Amino acid sequence: MIDLDALKKILGPDHVVADPAEVERRGRCLIPDVQRPEAFLYPGSLEEIQAVLRLANEKGFPLWPCGKGKNWGYGSATPARSGGAVMVLERMNRIWEVNETLAYAVIEPGVTYRQLHAHLQAHGHRLWTDCTDGPADGSVIGNALERGIGETPYGDHFENICGVEALLADGTLVRTGGGPLADNKTWNVHKWGVGPYLEGLFSQSNFGVVTKIGLWLMPAPERFVSCLFELNREEDFPRLIDALRRLAFAGALRSKVHLINDVTTFGVVAKNPRDLLEGAPCLTDERRAALRDKFNIAPWTFAAGLYGTGAQVRAAKALIRRELRALGRLWFIGDTLNRWIGRAVEFINKRPPAVAHRLSMLLFRKPLPCAAALPEMHAIEQGRPSDYFVKHAYMKRHGAKPPDNDIDPARDGCGGIWAGPVAPLEGRAVAGLVEHCRALARARQLDINFALMVSNPRSVILLTSLFYDKRDLEETRRVLALYNEIAESTQVLGYQQYRTSTAFMGRIFRTSPEFLDLARRLKTALDPKGVLAPGKYGLDPF
Amino acid sequence: MIDLDALKKILGPDHVVADPAEVERRGRCLIPDVQRPEAFLYPGSLEEIQAVLRLANEKGFPLWPCGKGKNWGYGSATPARSGGAVMVLERMNRIWEVNETLAYAVIEPGVTYRQLHAHLQAHGHRLWTDCTDGPADGSVIGNALERGIGETPYGDHFENICGVEALLADGTLVRTGGGPLADNKTWNVHKWGVGPYLEGLFSQSNFGVVTKIGLWLMPAPERFVSCLFELNREEDFPRLIDALRRLAFAGALRSKVHLINDVTTFGVVAKNPRDLLEGAPCLTDERRAALRDKFNIAPWTFAAGLYGTGAQVRAAKALIRRELRALGRLWFIGDTLNRWIGRAVEFINKRPPAVAHRLSMLLFRKPLPCAAALPEMHAIEQGRPSDYFVKHAYMKRHGAKPPDNDIDPARDGCGGIWAGPVAPLEGRAVAGLVEHCRALARARQLDINFALMVSNPRSVILLTSLFYDKRDLEETRRVLALYNEIAESTQVLGYQQYRTSTAFMGRIFRTSPEFLDLARRLKTALDPKGVLAPGKYGLDPF
Repeated sequence: MIDLDALKKILGPDHVVADPAEVERRGRCLIPDVQRPEAFLYPGSLEEIQAVLRLANEKGFPLWPCGKGKNWGYGSATPARSGGAVMVLERMNRIWEVNETLAYAVIEPGVTYRQLHAHLQAHGHRLWTDCTDGPADGSVIGNALERGIGETPYGDHFENICGVEALLADGTLVRTGGGPLADNKTWNVHKWGVGPYLEGLFSQSNFGVVTKIGLWLMPAPERFVSCLFELNREEDFPRLIDALRRLAFAGALRSKVHLINDVTTFGVVAKNPRDLLEGAPCLTDERRAALRDKFNIAPWTFAAGLYGTGAQVRAAKALIRRELRALGRLWFIGDTLNRWIGRAVEFINKRPPAVAHRLSMLLFRKPLPCAAALPEMHAIEQGRPSDYFVKHAYMKRHGAKPPDNDIDPARDGCGGIWAGPVAPLEGRAVAGLVEHCRALARARQLDINFALMVSNPRSVILLTSLFYDKRDLEETRRVLALYNEIAESTQVLGYQQYRTSTAFMGRIFRTSPEFLDLARRLKTALDPKGVLAPGKYGLDPF
Repeated sequence: MIDLDALKKILGPDHVVADPAEVERRGRCLIPDVQRPEAFLYPGSLEEIQAVLRLANEKGFPLWPCGKGKNWGYGSATPARSGGAVMVLERMNRIWEVNETLAYAVIEPGVTYRQLHAHLQAHGHRLWTDCTDGPADGSVIGNALERGIGETPYGDHFENICGVEALLADGTLVRTGGGPLADNKTWNVHKWGVGPYLEGLFSQSNFGVVTKIGLWLMPAPERFVSCLFELNREEDFPRLIDALRRLAFAGALRSKVHLINDVTTFGVVAKNPRDLLEGAPCLTDERRAALRDKFNIAPWTFAAGLYGTGAQVRAAKALIRRELRALGRLWFIGDTLNRWIGRAVEFINKRPPAVAHRLSMLLFRKPLPCAAALPEMHAIEQGRPSDYFVKHAYMKRHGAKPPDNDIDPARDGCGGIWAGPVAPLEGRAVAGLVEHCRALARARQLDINFALMVSNPRSVILLTSLFYDKRDLEETRRVLALYNEIAESTQVLGYQQYRTSTAFMGRIFRTSPEFLDLARRLKTALDPKGVLAPGKYGLDPF
């Protein structure tokens, strides 16, 4: 049983939250069904976490660690099973080291994208961080351990971890890499260390509480150009996918391309996207086609960044043009053009709406919100975190449009849940999987926001974001049903998910009992009482 | 106790070798002290391995698995502790799949570099494999699991594993990635799978017998150019290291640069390198300088490859010139020039030795063997395996020069042992570590063959190869003492080794008992009886 008095003694009363209303508020989440903890804990040091772990082992209550709890779409700060305590590590937010020459930082789990980026700027480091298009106040460590994907060439966040410090369930402090705890000169530069490579143990699992990581950062390139591509015809989608593979292999596209569908772009263009439905539960194919025509929106659009010397960027541009020119419209945006676009958008924005729309269509051949998104895209491809793209979570919310500042979809009743099956980066396979998901969505009368994330030249994550209004119970039920259908059917077809939500963790290894058995053997060895995050990714001791 | 009769029943009598002379022969090895097994086993299938594992658990004898046993310099096919059976998996040498579009192969542990390369050529695949400068008949899986480093951008062999199938000590078949055993469509394309990433468990460890891996291959680039650089002055070594870091970060050098010292190049130029010593135990600094002058050899030399479109290769060349032009001599060799060099070498080679030498110095400003090495370098930067560079192992052998074919240093009495501390890729740190090792070698009157392998833009492996004549007991003793001094002192200074030999495995975690404890917990969970490779990387169950 959870022992609040003992916890308050360890952490101080301000850092133990058990008031039911406050627990409810802090456990708000975008996904449909949410398990509630009994308390939220906010330890401030290694020693405090160790004391909490000792107590949890002694009293037998579970602890669900998280960095900031902003894992929106996958369960935020809520556990896979009700009860126990969520341990939020946001007070441990020190940046221990930034090494400019070797391009890495050593950080704690409470460090956010916004904080890390600001720190690099403030100290004049010629280093870029990566970020996601999710909340700027998300935990860098949390996202990396859950294997989130960002935007730049450093967007495979787990890949860019080098050096993990963690507390095991019994409070033992360990470091990966096989080197000494102190004065290990290669802990953050030599990825595999010596002996078994164990950093993977702490990713998408519950084998320890990660308290520090080394994170590789990108040396600022001499030249940066962002790139936007709009596909002309839906039927060329498989050709586009094959071209993306070739461009990724050739190193012309090293950023983590996010290929989004028209539904996602509608969310940018509409002041309140729900209005686009005109009362219907979802967009029909015809309505989508009509909206695309009206706003000059492509069936698929992607942004990317090009990085390097002038000659390297030119070589990449030439390859991209060769592969994509025939398939759609390409924009390359350098810093100068980007500033010009920003100023033009500002100028147009001050005109009356009808005039502004006409001006924007004339100048950009796009509605003003699409043009206004270009500088945001240009920024995020440089790893500059912002909450701009989080507005998508308001996509299906009834009533008011998303706020301009202080965006908080969980607070505002937005619903969203994401399934992300992975496919080989081949046109036919990806097109087949997209159509499979669309057919399921049609039957449930729901829209899917697709973001196809090219995580490496060989595979793509088919992120299917299902947005809804959490206060609409009927829509919520339909979304949960569609989510389950997508997650289960793609799994049975042999497409594993890249990451999953607390709603699906109990089923993620249904088709792979041998793997679950192996992982549970390790869990039993490291946390025999199952104190840490029981049920996370289905993992419990035997 | 090892049960030979039962093993012969399982594997067939031809696949169990216990004759002492034959065991001695198959256990020959370059490192000084070698532990002898009781038998060599050659299973031919998963089922046979499973039966052997069952027997080993029942009777309590250890099994040391290896692919081909060509792990020269680290212990070859010999175990960390005497006794038990070495299980060589060379009969399991099927190439299950080559996917040209997605650029990967699925292979068994007996597949060699030579075999994989020949297979790709024979089937006309536009894919390149990587290889090491070690034996062409080495196991691709064996090297990748030991985290060997090759030559091309795919030279971090462990990094390019995607999908591991292994048998645990109890015979359970597992696959990493969290997907089903059959019809997992992303096993070989999506690196991390879902749930904890467990491939690292099977690397530099003894947690399972790997029976299959997915290996990423490089799509043949449109253009390839090899690059040779010779440093003018030893005092610019730190500047060279810093330049290599910037070039690696900039993507201009993506191949795994091997920076070799003059001692290593002397091994190329001399018919029988031992003669260069003129009876002395090692080369003094003065003698090295004189030899460098005589043969026009640089204190440090590296080879690299450039890959991409014409424009990409040009951009890389421009960056390399910018960084290195002031420090030494650069050669860029395309396929045409390479053919021309090959023909010229062939022509010169037919002249009398004195004429040939003069012609070569005139044409290449190098002795003929150095010029003859250029096409070999050009080939290996394309991942074409050959035994050419293995000749180095004959460096200190008394008597005959290395054979032109059927090179087998273990058979021929060559000695060699390698310590590979890792350093941050910073000029001062690397220069300090080189000087530290040189001072130790001077005191022992030995030469070091350095190969600095840039495994990523942030770190470099300082491979110190100590060659000797195995039949010379006094020299062998000195080499072992120097090896121990290098391995132990660099470890104490905080420079972990990237990989170690059976001679050092018991000491590899001396400075990191917490890590050893964590790894042993996992070993206990997966192999409680310690049947698999006891003592490998110091790992035993509790």
